Amino acid sequence: MEFSLHDLQQLDKSFRAQLVNSLSGYKSANLLGSQNKDGKTNLAIISSVFHLGADPALVGFIMRPHSVPRHSLENILKTGCYTLNQVNSAIWQAAHQTSARYESDESEFDMVGLTPHYLNGFEAPFVAQSHIKYAVELQSTQTLVNQTELVIGEIKHIYLPQNALMPDGFIDLATADTVAVSGLDCYSTANPLGRLSYAKPHQEVKKLTRSGEVIQN
Amino acid sequence: MEFSLHDLQQLDKSFRAQLVNSLSGYKSANLLGSQNKDGKTNLAIISSVFHLGADPALVGFIMRPHSVPRHSLENILKTGCYTLNQVNSAIWQAAHQTSARYESDESEFDMVGLTPHYLNGFEAPFVAQSHIKYAVELQSTQTLVNQTELVIGEIKHIYLPQNALMPDGFIDLATADTVAVSGLDCYSTANPLGRLSYAKPHQEVKKLTRSGEVIQN
Repeated sequence: MEFSLHDLQQLDKSFRAQLVNSLSGYKSANLLGSQNKDGKTNLAIISSVFHLGADPALVGFIMRPHSVPRHSLENILKTGCYTLNQVNSAIWQAAHQTSARYESDESEFDMVGLTPHYLNGFEAPFVAQSHIKYAVELQSTQTLVNQTELVIGEIKHIYLPQNALMPDGFIDLATADTVAVSGLDCYSTANPLGRLSYAKPHQEVKKLTRSGEVIQN
Repeated sequence: MEFSLHDLQQLDKSFRAQLVNSLSGYKSANLLGSQNKDGKTNLAIISSVFHLGADPALVGFIMRPHSVPRHSLENILKTGCYTLNQVNSAIWQAAHQTSARYESDESEFDMVGLTPHYLNGFEAPFVAQSHIKYAVELQSTQTLVNQTELVIGEIKHIYLPQNALMPDGFIDLATADTVAVSGLDCYSTANPLGRLSYAKPHQEVKKLTRSGEVIQN
């Protein structure tokens, strides 16, 4: 079945939001940790974190104009630092609950039952219950076409469980129990189909083990 | 375990690329279809498509400076249009193979065995084997901090299987067999944990069926 531009424009607002949010495919599920100058913490689920570069290690995310994480953006602009914490299947419901519109004097950590955690003197809180997390220093923000905000930062320190790190640097997100988001509100764990070798023209790609070794047929 | 900024800077380049690419979490897997003014087609797998807005329906993606999709970017800048096609578990290996550095006179469609498909007169090829796909008109491009290119477009026409569309507009990506990417080369299908109701302060979120109905406890 299909939706033309005309159909899209005629749709009920909530139906259209569900539909269009599903189109990009699976999205990363991360908790954005920040705090203000007085140490008041804030936590917001975001589904738009994306890789920008490995050296320097840069990561971007999008903040919607009137979305809940507006307190997060204020904190980030004032302190210049934040944390990103992958959501796993033990905390997916608490993570979703952070999207409620709490007052600025209510910390989402307290409201949803997650634990703020400070590591190596970094001035933004991590989520104790998250397995893969990293400290990020703000590099730039810019407003895009529809008043969404693109936030880019540099990764300064990474924490992860040893058993999820493979010998070639790949992190096995399935071992770390990381979840993905689809649409506005659906959460999933993953069933790995496999890893594949670096693709070269006129050569068939090979399946790899999760450790990155070629599987012999 | 942990990696400090100093550790990151000392890492082998390929290890660092694997590690940092894994940090964002699960990524969307899409095939970017385009063609030049002579109708020569191009197809490239990208893992950075993200939702930007529902009305107008806007979608963004990132192109790395020296990555393979450079032919795609040239096509998009010249024709102003492209398609995005979700990768599913029947075509994940062919999709990965499009990342090989083919010559500009070799179409990835032919090289990897996927079928170009034209719909409703749109001047960019869809992937026949993809279940969820849409026509996109270029709106803007801009160069970001590390010479990556941010490409933003407006969704003009959507195609999807009827059985994947839920009554509230949510597309069940598991039914459509869509896959996610993690790191540089790992592909997974999804195990839905469930959908959750819109979060409100001081109220517990409720689990929803895939159709969006509240599950009564």
